[in-house]
Amino acid sequence: MKALEERILSEGKILPGPVLKVSSFLNHQMDPDLIMEIGAEIGRRFKDEKVTKILTIESSGIAIALAVGAALHVPVIFAKKHRTSNVSGAVYQTIVHSYTHNVDYTVVVESEFIKSDDNVLLVDDFLANGKALEGLMELVKQSGAKIAGAGIAIEKGFQDGGSNLKARGLRIESMAVIDSMDENGITFR
Amino acid sequence: MKALEERILSEGKILPGPVLKVSSFLNHQMDPDLIMEIGAEIGRRFKDEKVTKILTIESSGIAIALAVGAALHVPVIFAKKHRTSNVSGAVYQTIVHSYTHNVDYTVVVESEFIKSDDNVLLVDDFLANGKALEGLMELVKQSGAKIAGAGIAIEKGFQDGGSNLKARGLRIESMAVIDSMDENGITFR
Repeated sequence: MKALEERILSEGKILPGPVLKVSSFLNHQMDPDLIMEIGAEIGRRFKDEKVTKILTIESSGIAIALAVGAALHVPVIFAKKHRTSNVSGAVYQTIVHSYTHNVDYTVVVESEFIKSDDNVLLVDDFLANGKALEGLMELVKQSGAKIAGAGIAIEKGFQDGGSNLKARGLRIESMAVIDSMDENGITFR
Repeated sequence: MKALEERILSEGKILPGPVLKVSSFLNHQMDPDLIMEIGAEIGRRFKDEKVTKILTIESSGIAIALAVGAALHVPVIFAKKHRTSNVSGAVYQTIVHSYTHNVDYTVVVESEFIKSDDNVLLVDDFLANGKALEGLMELVKQSGAKIAGAGIAIEKGFQDGGSNLKARGLRIESMAVIDSMDENGITFR
């Protein structure tokens, strides 16, 4: 998506890791017009898939997921992150390791919100090693629902999360795929 | 807002506290059409205020704040919650006590995103004791910016946060104000 790529080039900052910092428009400060446009485009790509629910993970996936939900007019669920494993009630839950914060989270969705006849579209702001998406896939698996695919704002194509998950049959639509980024700049696929 | 009040009556659950559980449409599972409608109405109420930034707090304020931002076409910032006070970099920060989770959070915004010439609209899903709004007001105060007011989805009018903050001069626009809720039902103002 050209508008997103241009914004990454003009405002993205490359930090050691490499980490791409896009906190001026995507995940700390957010440009609502750009995010609604990203949501509309992800919605357009999955419009024939009979999506019944959208699932993301707090916090930075919420805005994009809402925008996709506004395009497809289906409910949006965000999985909650807990530091403890003491989660009560009827829930789906799994563990996701965050490399950014080097910590394990218990990720939880109340089970009443995803049923076995749902067709769930996964949404997140970033796809790098794929651990967050794998966690969301596990939650959907526990529900017995189908997965329509994943809509991602920015995929780090030089990390193996995207290729591994595609090899396992997941349809992934990323609005910008970065093939390389270093002191010489950013190359999109 | 009639659509929100009707949804609270049809799907809200009253738990001991009293806590109003609206996780089927507002803050775990979200109805994007209703949330966009709430955002449009909050935006309409503040449209003449020359708002330049919207500020909310993760996680459950993000969706509504994005919807207000989409209506007013201004950037949306979400303050981040940390369990530790070890926050580095140029930030505004304060402590907010959560009665729901009985824990203190350090709440942080990178200082580059709010400048002294900004006019900031605060947005959140709930207003009860007002601690979250007070935290956001403190962050804006540190920046030197003005506060245009606060747009809230659901205000618990039987708790004193709203009346205390109004007495201090804050303009608050709540889309639904609950005057009482108990086993006999919910009464709106």
